[in-house]
Amino acid sequence: MPIVVQKYGGSSIETIEKIRSVANRISERRKKGYEMVIVVSAMGKTTDYLIDMAYQISDSPIEREMDVLMATGEQVSISLLSIALNEIGIEAVSYTGPQLGIKTEGYHTKARIAEISDDIILDAISNGKVVIVAGFQGVNENNEITTLGRGGSDTTAVAIAAKLGCPCEIYTDVDGIYTIDPRLYPSAKKLETISYEEMLELASSGAGVLHPRSIELAEIYKVPLTVALNVGNIKGTVIKELDKTMEKTAITGLAVDNNEAMITLNGVPHNIKIIADIFAKIAELDINIDMISQTTPVNKLVSISFTLPKNDLTQAIDVLEKYKEEIFTFSYETFDNITKLSVIGIGMKSQSGVASKMFNILADNDIPVHIITTSEIKISYVINPEDQQKAIESIAREYNL
Amino acid sequence: MPIVVQKYGGSSIETIEKIRSVANRISERRKKGYEMVIVVSAMGKTTDYLIDMAYQISDSPIEREMDVLMATGEQVSISLLSIALNEIGIEAVSYTGPQLGIKTEGYHTKARIAEISDDIILDAISNGKVVIVAGFQGVNENNEITTLGRGGSDTTAVAIAAKLGCPCEIYTDVDGIYTIDPRLYPSAKKLETISYEEMLELASSGAGVLHPRSIELAEIYKVPLTVALNVGNIKGTVIKELDKTMEKTAITGLAVDNNEAMITLNGVPHNIKIIADIFAKIAELDINIDMISQTTPVNKLVSISFTLPKNDLTQAIDVLEKYKEEIFTFSYETFDNITKLSVIGIGMKSQSGVASKMFNILADNDIPVHIITTSEIKISYVINPEDQQKAIESIAREYNL
Repeated sequence: MPIVVQKYGGSSIETIEKIRSVANRISERRKKGYEMVIVVSAMGKTTDYLIDMAYQISDSPIEREMDVLMATGEQVSISLLSIALNEIGIEAVSYTGPQLGIKTEGYHTKARIAEISDDIILDAISNGKVVIVAGFQGVNENNEITTLGRGGSDTTAVAIAAKLGCPCEIYTDVDGIYTIDPRLYPSAKKLETISYEEMLELASSGAGVLHPRSIELAEIYKVPLTVALNVGNIKGTVIKELDKTMEKTAITGLAVDNNEAMITLNGVPHNIKIIADIFAKIAELDINIDMISQTTPVNKLVSISFTLPKNDLTQAIDVLEKYKEEIFTFSYETFDNITKLSVIGIGMKSQSGVASKMFNILADNDIPVHIITTSEIKISYVINPEDQQKAIESIAREYNL
Repeated sequence: MPIVVQKYGGSSIETIEKIRSVANRISERRKKGYEMVIVVSAMGKTTDYLIDMAYQISDSPIEREMDVLMATGEQVSISLLSIALNEIGIEAVSYTGPQLGIKTEGYHTKARIAEISDDIILDAISNGKVVIVAGFQGVNENNEITTLGRGGSDTTAVAIAAKLGCPCEIYTDVDGIYTIDPRLYPSAKKLETISYEEMLELASSGAGVLHPRSIELAEIYKVPLTVALNVGNIKGTVIKELDKTMEKTAITGLAVDNNEAMITLNGVPHNIKIIADIFAKIAELDINIDMISQTTPVNKLVSISFTLPKNDLTQAIDVLEKYKEEIFTFSYETFDNITKLSVIGIGMKSQSGVASKMFNILADNDIPVHIITTSEIKISYVINPEDQQKAIESIAREYNL
């Protein structure tokens, strides 16, 4: 029988009623002749609740123990789903990440899957069982419990599908991938298919449905990935390798990120070493600088703007203040209220002029742009939040999104 | 440095505040120069909450998955306590039962510890860490998560102390072992010491402070066991081998059990095979028959009374009804409201006449007795619940309990 990996997120199993309903879905699918591996997250807001308890005790709880704590969330889910399946006559068996030998490397709370053994899964399948796996967790080389960070359960599901060489279905509370988040643009169109590459850029640019790591992994191992609604039978979106049946549109999707801030440094000497040094000092704090633009020098001084996660703004300002005191003086401005808007399309590779056409659209609509960066299949803009809706609508109209 | 194992039950760590307070206790003790291994239960009513979720899904949730579910309770506790200790500068590290290699045998939800390795514990101790262990859980030969049943965390603590050859301290919400439960008899005296043997009989007879299995284990491995209050520095009770300093009182303690029911069978042929057969059919259902008494035969018919856990009464009645239909007829009466009162004392071994003196006390106070059973250091009585208080008071007065 063909194998399929399904993943159900926290909102799909946040109540006992929903767990029962997921069990029924699995049962129906199984009766159609599938071997099934089910990856689940923690129920609803469980992880937040666990984290909150830890922070009541400490402002900086040690990460090894945070992993021990957070891993319990998925463990509750697997046992309850397995009980629900067995209750309706579907033999099921649950495994935690450590039990399944999901080996990870890297740091606690943001480990990466290094190795998965499929022995236990295949053994259970050959005994006629549905296999329920705790997502988001694994075990490191010291036999310590680890967690995979945000989006970790998606990554677990894709990694298992990669190992088994089977497709992966991610069930969630949206019914697929849209050209634009429908909450921002209600007439956005649902995509039937999208390439890994485009989906990765969309996800990295603020489209929150899937975590970039899971898409990367799916791309590497060519795992067909379906995103669909966790109730009913509405067809979702398939993320797969680009093939001839897929239209190479100039712009496939548009993503908006409101979680970035911008800093502009003024009067910085036009000296690559100094600039590199400032960025290095910020990077030391694990702050991820995203977009960067630099003016042409005037009197050997330049202005530099860059974006960074809003949460890291205070820390970055501390670095700059210290730098001003110790090294040399410059002025800076911070903007904690910006919109980063990105358009993504595999067609950009072959169609020239997308950037300039986009630029015209924004200019025609009197939308000032603070930073632009371009990559092979993506163009990102920093604009003012008050222009966000106007920008989305004019681009969507032009490109029929 | 000397090692000590401490165990904190669910009520000792039911809130974040209490977890902090336990961390402070551990810190104080550590500063006195002890290596410490701390065993914890699930916080407060967590286990009940988890069980309740499972029963919302199924009337008979499969036990393998119940173990996966319940084991999360202790895992939350160990991580939070470890975070709390590290927060106040005490290096600590947590381990689940499976991580520590606590190997179990027997059934899910009531497994028994078969083997403990102390490698990981000793290694962590030699690295200057306080070791936090999830009680109540282990792993079976198939690498499945198991739990130890009621009182399991006490058993984990004693088993680790046995392996390490060190004393074990059980912290709870009572300040020691009393001659009689102070809720039943407020002027009961706290015992400074008690022998394993007496404590085991007390615990088996309804004194709920410790689980009999943990006492058995302590006795086998001669682990000195202290039961004390989880706050302050009140001296608790030490459970240890009988030695010359301990007074061999005729009666050391009195225990009351209100969770038993009694069944009396009338008109049963005086035939050992039939009687054995009835009991065997009840035992097949895993029902634990405790006290048994039989009248002398009249017309070759006897009456038999026996006690069993109140929860199992309905099941036992089903067996009897079926037996009546299929084999032969007899009448029976059930009493779901009885008191089982037991007096325990190592001195009974050497002092004769305790049973008859006890009998006189009950007779003098017009307390009818339905069943009596005696063992080397215990006498148990089934009496009417309305006589319970009178019986306790008259025995306590006579034996200065």
